[in-house]
Amino acid sequence: MGFTRHAAAVLCVVFLTVSGARGSDPELTKDFSIPPGIDTSKLDGSFFTYTGFRGGVSTAPGETGSKKATVVEFPALDGLGISFFLMSFAPGGVLPPHLHPRGSKLIYMIQGTLTVGFMDSNHKLYNSTLEEGDVYVVPRALVHYMANLDGDKETKVIFAFSSSNPGSIRLPENLFGSKIPTKVLEKSFGVSEQVIEQLEAPYHKNTTGDYH
Amino acid sequence: MGFTRHAAAVLCVVFLTVSGARGSDPELTKDFSIPPGIDTSKLDGSFFTYTGFRGGVSTAPGETGSKKATVVEFPALDGLGISFFLMSFAPGGVLPPHLHPRGSKLIYMIQGTLTVGFMDSNHKLYNSTLEEGDVYVVPRALVHYMANLDGDKETKVIFAFSSSNPGSIRLPENLFGSKIPTKVLEKSFGVSEQVIEQLEAPYHKNTTGDYH
Amino acid sequence: MGFTRHAAAVLCVVFLTVSGARGSDPELTKDFSIPPGIDTSKLDGSFFTYTGFRGGVSTAPGETGSKKATVVEFPALDGLGISFFLMSFAPGGVLPPHLHPRGSKLIYMIQGTLTVGFMDSNHKLYNSTLEEGDVYVVPRALVHYMANLDGDKETKVIFAFSSSNPGSIRLPENLFGSKIPTKVLEKSFGVSEQVIEQLEAPYHKNTTGDYH
Amino acid sequence: MGFTRHAAAVLCVVFLTVSGARGSDPELTKDFSIPPGIDTSKLDGSFFTYTGFRGGVSTAPGETGSKKATVVEFPALDGLGISFFLMSFAPGGVLPPHLHPRGSKLIYMIQGTLTVGFMDSNHKLYNSTLEEGDVYVVPRALVHYMANLDGDKETKVIFAFSSSNPGSIRLPENLFGSKIPTKVLEKSFGVSEQVIEQLEAPYHKNTTGDYH
Amino acid sequence: MGFTRHAAAVLCVVFLTVSGARGSDPELTKDFSIPPGIDTSKLDGSFFTYTGFRGGVSTAPGETGSKKATVVEFPALDGLGISFFLMSFAPGGVLPPHLHPRGSKLIYMIQGTLTVGFMDSNHKLYNSTLEEGDVYVVPRALVHYMANLDGDKETKVIFAFSSSNPGSIRLPENLFGSKIPTKVLEKSFGVSEQVIEQLEAPYHKNTTGDYH
Amino acid sequence: MGFTRHAAAVLCVVFLTVSGARGSDPELTKDFSIPPGIDTSKLDGSFFTYTGFRGGVSTAPGETGSKKATVVEFPALDGLGISFFLMSFAPGGVLPPHLHPRGSKLIYMIQGTLTVGFMDSNHKLYNSTLEEGDVYVVPRALVHYMANLDGDKETKVIFAFSSSNPGSIRLPENLFGSKIPTKVLEKSFGVSEQVIEQLEAPYHKNTTGDYH
Repeated sequence: MGFTRHAAAVLCVVFLTVSGARGSDPELTKDFSIPPGIDTSKLDGSFFTYTGFRGGVSTAPGETGSKKATVVEFPALDGLGISFFLMSFAPGGVLPPHLHPRGSKLIYMIQGTLTVGFMDSNHKLYNSTLEEGDVYVVPRALVHYMANLDGDKETKVIFAFSSSNPGSIRLPENLFGSKIPTKVLEKSFGVSEQVIEQLEAPYHKNTTGDYH
Repeated sequence: MGFTRHAAAVLCVVFLTVSGARGSDPELTKDFSIPPGIDTSKLDGSFFTYTGFRGGVSTAPGETGSKKATVVEFPALDGLGISFFLMSFAPGGVLPPHLHPRGSKLIYMIQGTLTVGFMDSNHKLYNSTLEEGDVYVVPRALVHYMANLDGDKETKVIFAFSSSNPGSIRLPENLFGSKIPTKVLEKSFGVSEQVIEQLEAPYHKNTTGDYH
Repeated sequence: MGFTRHAAAVLCVVFLTVSGARGSDPELTKDFSIPPGIDTSKLDGSFFTYTGFRGGVSTAPGETGSKKATVVEFPALDGLGISFFLMSFAPGGVLPPHLHPRGSKLIYMIQGTLTVGFMDSNHKLYNSTLEEGDVYVVPRALVHYMANLDGDKETKVIFAFSSSNPGSIRLPENLFGSKIPTKVLEKSFGVSEQVIEQLEAPYHKNTTGDYH
Repeated sequence: MGFTRHAAAVLCVVFLTVSGARGSDPELTKDFSIPPGIDTSKLDGSFFTYTGFRGGVSTAPGETGSKKATVVEFPALDGLGISFFLMSFAPGGVLPPHLHPRGSKLIYMIQGTLTVGFMDSNHKLYNSTLEEGDVYVVPRALVHYMANLDGDKETKVIFAFSSSNPGSIRLPENLFGSKIPTKVLEKSFGVSEQVIEQLEAPYHKNTTGDYH
Repeated sequence: MGFTRHAAAVLCVVFLTVSGARGSDPELTKDFSIPPGIDTSKLDGSFFTYTGFRGGVSTAPGETGSKKATVVEFPALDGLGISFFLMSFAPGGVLPPHLHPRGSKLIYMIQGTLTVGFMDSNHKLYNSTLEEGDVYVVPRALVHYMANLDGDKETKVIFAFSSSNPGSIRLPENLFGSKIPTKVLEKSFGVSEQVIEQLEAPYHKNTTGDYH
Repeated sequence: MGFTRHAAAVLCVVFLTVSGARGSDPELTKDFSIPPGIDTSKLDGSFFTYTGFRGGVSTAPGETGSKKATVVEFPALDGLGISFFLMSFAPGGVLPPHLHPRGSKLIYMIQGTLTVGFMDSNHKLYNSTLEEGDVYVVPRALVHYMANLDGDKETKVIFAFSSSNPGSIRLPENLFGSKIPTKVLEKSFGVSEQVIEQLEAPYHKNTTGDYH
């Protein structure tokens, strides 16, 4: 009996691991994808509705806040090649340089202003200052940043991605919070060990957040 | 000389025809795609910024309004597999049953309420009533409708698509405004010629709008 | 108890085999795909042969008949991106407007004549009258109809699709047999509630057939 | 003159910008693809209709005959990922071992019988004897043969491919008509130079046909 | 017992839901793919390191030798669309005509010389004599051969493939070791039964090796 | 004038040839892709052979050196989804943290030792110390570094990519050589303006190299 329950638990883990696992966003061969374990006869519109964005995103002064609707939070997206992040930027809020390995990002400015920019393979910066209603696109896997530099009110944006699970790699932490050998960082960035230590300092406490 | 100018015009047409033509949203083999004729040395962030949504969408009473940001309006999207539509629904506004042949649609409710639904291959309806902040997904090429049935204020939404050019096929017009033989429609819909004529009446004036 | 443990073991094997699941027609990473539970050492040519089309398709007067060979009926097609439907049209037989969300359709006229047409996103109709031996193509997810309007003998055709499971959405039933709110249908089609009721009448008996 | 050189330079830039790539069967970003030079305002159903298969295929005694409807003969197929070959086999007619590098093949038996087989990567043969109405599938790029071995009447089949241009590589000619060094062939096939010469003999006259 | 039957039924439902499809090299929706059963908390760099090529490849005089690093030997490659083979050719060593159904092959010459060639769909041979440091490409699914014809020392090469599991079909064995009916082979190759028997002789002992 | 007309004609031909343009690595619809302007009747094995790696890569003490064979240097790769970089690391040579937006990377150690590591979306480091003969894989678009930290001789490696043009984004320069606003960098990296200036110092001279 205990075994049965345990087996079920193991199975659940396995399902989580393989559902979405090999995963891929290409063509489905059915109308949509239903995770194992769901009684399809009871499937209704609620499966295709995600309410986690209700109430918007709260943001501390000078900071940013976000919520995600990817295949992880909203399983109906599996195989559909699309997802959303909702974000707000308090005045002074900065989204550090980061990239999405599996999706291009299309930004819509719901409210406020935003300074944005991405860099291409030649290290050329394509920056822009966005107003309410503007749209901006960041091609897949290119590094970009965003900041509410000049605004005096909260900025609200929605990001759409060309993947059900685009991923996010926040570079300050990826580079300086992941224990790359100091010698490599020194030579790579052309700075002294002391500077590398300053760059690594924020991550000594091992706080690995969740970004976008 | 006149020839030269003419040739250039012809070339432009040709470029419009082939650019996006064989087109496809799969992997690029460069950071992004630049249409021929653009001086890449002068390319800057404005190429990746679309301002056509500024000011939102105006809507007549009882109607809907929309603006698009696909590869047609915003060439930087070429090859990136993503696009936006911005829509507003006055109270009573209805977006008739339609489908997008080349993309799944992810809806974010900026303001108001919305009654939505899509039908799968078994003609089962997955409907939902969305509130401000809600997200709803319509899988690729499935028929869906939307309406501000109960609201007393304008509803504002943004649609993201998993294609740079998802296409839109509005079914009332596609079926009854395209001159399918009456005999075929009668038998298909199981109604009399008089009913078919009523269904075709709105399109006799040949007004082919632009929908989504 | 022993059974439970055994079942779990079986499930694990199964999971390893299907891992990644979530059907799609993209590239296989093996020669072909074998459903779990088949003893591969006994696999022979019969797995790659489908005999369900033998004897053709029977059709009642004035009607159409069909058989399918998709991945559902013919599992060897899994991952191969191709499938067949076999159809016959008695004189007067009509295949109502419908669409295939996941595949383009290529038609070969085995016998007889056929009136066909599809509509593009601009509601333009591309119709044709096909003779024995003709080929006609309907691009993916576009609405099309077919009818043996003028023939006095049975028409036989084969459809090939660019997906192992193209899906079929028959629009009369999808629109009027799925319980879309009447108010939405009235406004969408510009007709009265009485006309909508006539259009819905054929589906009150809840007969959900299987089309193409 | 200087202008010519300049024009060439401009063209080079253009080429670099649009670099390479054409052909591919992936997603279109339009309803369908129209070759440059066609007046789209005059486009009608005839563009989507191919009549080259009318009258079937003539076949000499003991031989095979074929016609193709790929993107080469039927440009409307561009980007749609599907094509047809029509074939007939006189009694004794053999289609030598060959493969299609870019598409899986789905066979429908219009008339007669056919002996078919394909080999997988482990050199295992999956053969079958097909009757009228049967369907058989050959996975992409695997070697297969077909023959009307036992029939006493003409066999008629249609092949559908999961590519608009699947390609055909006929192995006897590919191996023995392409001037691979004799030493390589001797060692590869484990036979004497005299045997290789016999195998090469049919191609000494340089007749490179067109197969499938 | 009743339970067993029920469990089987449930499993069937599950299989229908997750229908078929696994392997494919398309986009992942995670950073990488981990086989079920691996404790992800203990995953480290060794999972992404393959040491099976250490020590190189041993080769008998006049022969070839090889090792593979595909998703079969190196599971971390799953979904990444790339793999390696390491090969060595003793002087006189020949890799018989073969093809890779699922990947293009890019060759790098680590040491020695090599005579190579592939044939296109028109049976045209594109041969080359490679020196140390040279790179040569064979497009997907085209037939090619390689041989250390003139060298007097061992040739070492590495092959990269555009698939995690490209497959290998060695044609001498595929054609003459798979029991294709002799009548088909006679007519296909235009030679007598005696010649076919000579070509089949090496495979009478049923030794089905593993090639590339 | 005649020239202009001629130029237009040439352009038309060119457009027909490149039509669809917009590079991508998906399926070709022919055996291989030939750039416009090449006389296909003269095409031979040399088009598929790249000799630019002959002689290897020279490397200054403490530095790294590299050569590329992507579609840019080796046009035959167009559409084939594969490319090579050849690299050498003098003792102490470091390849700074970087990523390839369009391809996974498979490394083969020709000679020497190498310290490598990549970070996933959770900033976890998967490092490894590679010996001669080892293989290591970096999934697409993830940040990685490499260094000959401990070796006392030159290390030689070859990289294969799952794209004909994977791209390379070297992060020190992308972040600190692209003029991201200092305020953004300060807040992102949690360091003072002085530290940012030290990090930017190497790029003040505007030396934008070419990396991988």
